[in-house]
Amino acid sequence: MSKPSLARGTRDFGPEQMAKRNFIFDTIRRYFQRYGFLPLETPAFENLSVLMGKYGEEGDQLLFKILNSGDFSSKLEEKDWNEGYKPLTSKISEKGLRYDLTVPFARHVVMNRGTLAMPFKRYQIQPVWRADRPQKGRYREFYQCDADVVGTDSLLCEAEIVLLLHDILPELGITDFTVKINNRKVLTGIADLIGAQGMEGPLCVAIDKLDKIGKQKVEEELTDRGFSENSITLLAPVFDLSAAKDPFLALKNWLGSSETGMQGVAELEEVWNLVDKLGLKNPKIELDVTLARGLSYYTGAIFEVKANGVQIGSISGGGRYDNLTGTFGVPGISGVGISLGVDRIYDVLEELNLFPQNQTTSTKVMLSNFDRQAFEYGLSVLPKLRLAGINAELYPDSVKLKKQLDYADRKNIPYVVLIGSDEMGSGLLTLKNMKTGDQEKLSVDDIIARIA
Amino acid sequence: MSKPSLARGTRDFGPEQMAKRNFIFDTIRRYFQRYGFLPLETPAFENLSVLMGKYGEEGDQLLFKILNSGDFSSKLEEKDWNEGYKPLTSKISEKGLRYDLTVPFARHVVMNRGTLAMPFKRYQIQPVWRADRPQKGRYREFYQCDADVVGTDSLLCEAEIVLLLHDILPELGITDFTVKINNRKVLTGIADLIGAQGMEGPLCVAIDKLDKIGKQKVEEELTDRGFSENSITLLAPVFDLSAAKDPFLALKNWLGSSETGMQGVAELEEVWNLVDKLGLKNPKIELDVTLARGLSYYTGAIFEVKANGVQIGSISGGGRYDNLTGTFGVPGISGVGISLGVDRIYDVLEELNLFPQNQTTSTKVMLSNFDRQAFEYGLSVLPKLRLAGINAELYPDSVKLKKQLDYADRKNIPYVVLIGSDEMGSGLLTLKNMKTGDQEKLSVDDIIARIA
Repeated sequence: MSKPSLARGTRDFGPEQMAKRNFIFDTIRRYFQRYGFLPLETPAFENLSVLMGKYGEEGDQLLFKILNSGDFSSKLEEKDWNEGYKPLTSKISEKGLRYDLTVPFARHVVMNRGTLAMPFKRYQIQPVWRADRPQKGRYREFYQCDADVVGTDSLLCEAEIVLLLHDILPELGITDFTVKINNRKVLTGIADLIGAQGMEGPLCVAIDKLDKIGKQKVEEELTDRGFSENSITLLAPVFDLSAAKDPFLALKNWLGSSETGMQGVAELEEVWNLVDKLGLKNPKIELDVTLARGLSYYTGAIFEVKANGVQIGSISGGGRYDNLTGTFGVPGISGVGISLGVDRIYDVLEELNLFPQNQTTSTKVMLSNFDRQAFEYGLSVLPKLRLAGINAELYPDSVKLKKQLDYADRKNIPYVVLIGSDEMGSGLLTLKNMKTGDQEKLSVDDIIARIA
Repeated sequence: MSKPSLARGTRDFGPEQMAKRNFIFDTIRRYFQRYGFLPLETPAFENLSVLMGKYGEEGDQLLFKILNSGDFSSKLEEKDWNEGYKPLTSKISEKGLRYDLTVPFARHVVMNRGTLAMPFKRYQIQPVWRADRPQKGRYREFYQCDADVVGTDSLLCEAEIVLLLHDILPELGITDFTVKINNRKVLTGIADLIGAQGMEGPLCVAIDKLDKIGKQKVEEELTDRGFSENSITLLAPVFDLSAAKDPFLALKNWLGSSETGMQGVAELEEVWNLVDKLGLKNPKIELDVTLARGLSYYTGAIFEVKANGVQIGSISGGGRYDNLTGTFGVPGISGVGISLGVDRIYDVLEELNLFPQNQTTSTKVMLSNFDRQAFEYGLSVLPKLRLAGINAELYPDSVKLKKQLDYADRKNIPYVVLIGSDEMGSGLLTLKNMKTGDQEKLSVDDIIARIA
C-alpha cells in the first residue's frame, strides 16, 4: 500500500488558506464588478488547436497535454513511434490544459462575437496549469484573475485599470505599491530612433539594470547584446529621463522625429490626464520607459505593479493588444487587460501580516456533548442558532470534554456552549469564550444576541 | 485559419449563466458553513497512483490522463509499443484529472491525519472530469459540491445531512422534493435472509421497478437474474413494505433473524428520531429499501434526493462509508457525506422557472458619452457612484446614443444616466430607467440614493 502524495508542483488548500485566498478573490471580484466587468468561466481543457502556437515554442512545451481516451495507439504505425515525441504527441493527444486565461477568452470572443455586447468587459478567475519546473513560489497549478475590455480603443480603459488597482490593492491592505506604465509605441520609437528596429526586448533588459549596475555597465551590456556604438550614443537621453522634471516633455523633445514614438507619448499623457479627471488623489503611477513585457502581443499601454518593501516580483501586469483574436481569423479587435497574481499577493499579505483577523469561515459556536440527555438538549438548541444565521455545530460524540474543547480549539471556534444538568434545569447555558476563557450563563436568545 | 471550438463535452459559462450558477454555489456554500463544514480545495490533477483502481475498471477508463512532459517516448522500447495501450499508458502518463472529490479528500485526510481536527468536516466545490461520451445533461467537465464528516460514526451526521438538504433546497426554491433513505445493512440483511448473499445490487434493480412493471414482472426479472424460487418466495414481504402503516415495525418483524439487518433498521430509526429531535417539521424523507447506490463503498446510510414534478434524475446522493481511507493504508476512519449535482439542480431551477430575478452581477448604471465635454463630466461622476458601492461604467466611446443604449440593454443594465449640455449646466442629470423608459432629472446624490 503506497503512501499517497500530491502531484509535483500542486497544493491542497485547507480551511485557513481557503479563507485567506477567498478574502483576496472576493475583494478582486467585487471591484471587477464595480467597474462593470462580467464573469466568464471557460473549461479546464481546450482543443490543442486552440492552444498550440499561442505561447511560443517554450509555451507549447509547457502545455499539459491530455492523452486521447480509449485505445490511442491503435492507429499508429511503426514509423510514428520513431518520429520523435513532438510529432507523436499530436497523434495521441488532442486536448491540453488551460495555460492562461487570455487565449480561452479570445476563443470565446471569436465563437460568440455575434451575440456579445461590445465593448465586452469580462473578468475571469480560474486556475491555469504549466509544466514548469516547480520551485519556491512557482507552481504547476495556480490561479489567475484577469479583467479585459475588448472592442474599443478608448484610453479610458487604461485609466480605469489604474483606478481599479488603486481600489483593489489598498482594500487588500497593500497601500505601498507602484503601478509602472509604459507604452509599446514609445519603445518602438526609441528603437527606431537609435537605428535598432525590433530590438526593444534586449534594449529594455539592459536599461532596466541602470539602478543596479550603473550607466557604464549598461552600455557594456548593450554592446554585448549587439547594439552599435552609434545606437548607444543616440540612446544617451534615456538615462536622464527618470531625473527629468517633466519626463513627458523630455520624451517628446527626444522622440519628436518618430511618429510612432510621439503617439505613444500622447497616449501615455492622455492616461495620466484621464486618471486625474477621474479624481484619483496621489496616484501611485510611474512612467517607466524600460518596462517591457509581452512584447510579442502588447501594442499600446504596458502595466506592471510592484508591492514596495517586499522582495516579491510583480503582483500584476497587463497591457493593450490590438490583435487578440487575429490568430483565430478575426482581426481588428483591440483590447486591454490586467492580470492579478493571487499567489504573489498572498505572499505579500503574509509577509507584511496584512490578512485581516478572523478571516476563517469556521464555526462560530460548538455545543458540547456530555451524555445522551445533554446531547438531546443540544439537538433542540442547534437549529435555533443556525436559524439566526450562526455557523454552529454539536459535537457528535459523548466523549471527554477535554477532547471536545481541543477540537473547538483546533478549529478556531471562538465560543463553546456547555450543557450540563444545571444548565438543562435552569435553561441558562454556559457560554465559554475560548480566547479569554470567560464563562457566563445565558439563555439561548441571549447567546444568539451575544454572538450573532 | 481554423475556426476555434470548445473541446467536446465542455462549456463556457457567460455572465448570465455564471450569475445563476453562483446563486446555487453561494447558497450551498452558506449552508455547508452554517453546519460547520470547512472549505478544502485539491489540485485538478493527481498522481495516477492515487486515482487508479478507485472507481472500478470503467472508472479507470474514464480518467483523463496527462501525457508526461518532455520526451515521454525516449525510454520506451519496441516491445512497449506492442503491448497494447493500457500498459503503454502507465509508461507515458503519471497524472490524471480529478474524477470525483471523494478520492482526493481521502488522500488529503491520509496525508494530514496528524494535524486535522477530528471529526473533520469539510466541504469541497470544484469541477471534476470524466471521459464519458457526452450527451444531453452529461458533460466531460462538471462541478460537484460535496460535504463529508470523517472520524465519527455518530448518526447525528446522517440526521444533519437530512436537515442540510431541507435548508438548501427550499432556499434554492425547490420545495417539492423527496430525500430517499436506505441503509446498506438492511440490504445485506434482506439478501442474507432470502439466501442470496452479495446479490443486493441486482435485487434492488429489480425491486425498484415494482411501481412501473408490477409484482409479477419483477419476480420474472429476479428469476432471470438468477434468484431461486425459494429466494423470491422469501422476498414476498418486501412488496408490502411501502403500504405498511409502520414500515420500521414491518421490517423488524421480517428481518428479526438477521443481526445485520436489525442493526440497519435501528440506525434508520435513530436517524428518523434525531431528525425529529432537531425540530424539523414535516420532513420530506422516505424509507426506500430498494435504494441501492454506491454498493461497493457505502456501508451504512444511503441517500438519494429527487426533485418532484420534473423528469430529471436525482439531484443529490450520498451515504456512509466505513473505509474511505483504507485504500491508502489507513483503515478504520468512518465517514458520511452528501454530494449535490449542480448541473441537475440548474436544470431543475430552469425548468420550474425558480431562478430569482435580477441575479446578474451586471453593472447597475451606465453613464452615456455624447462628446468629449460630456465624457469629461462623466469622469467626475463615475467615481462617486462606485464609492457608494454601485457597479457603474462610463461608455468608453463617443458614438451614437442608440448604440450606447443598445449596449446597456444587452448587458441588462437597469439605469442609464444621460449627460447633455442642459444637464451639465444645471447639475441635474437625466436618469433613465431602461425597463420603463421613465426619465427624471436628479442630482448625483439623488441618483445614488435612488439606485444604491
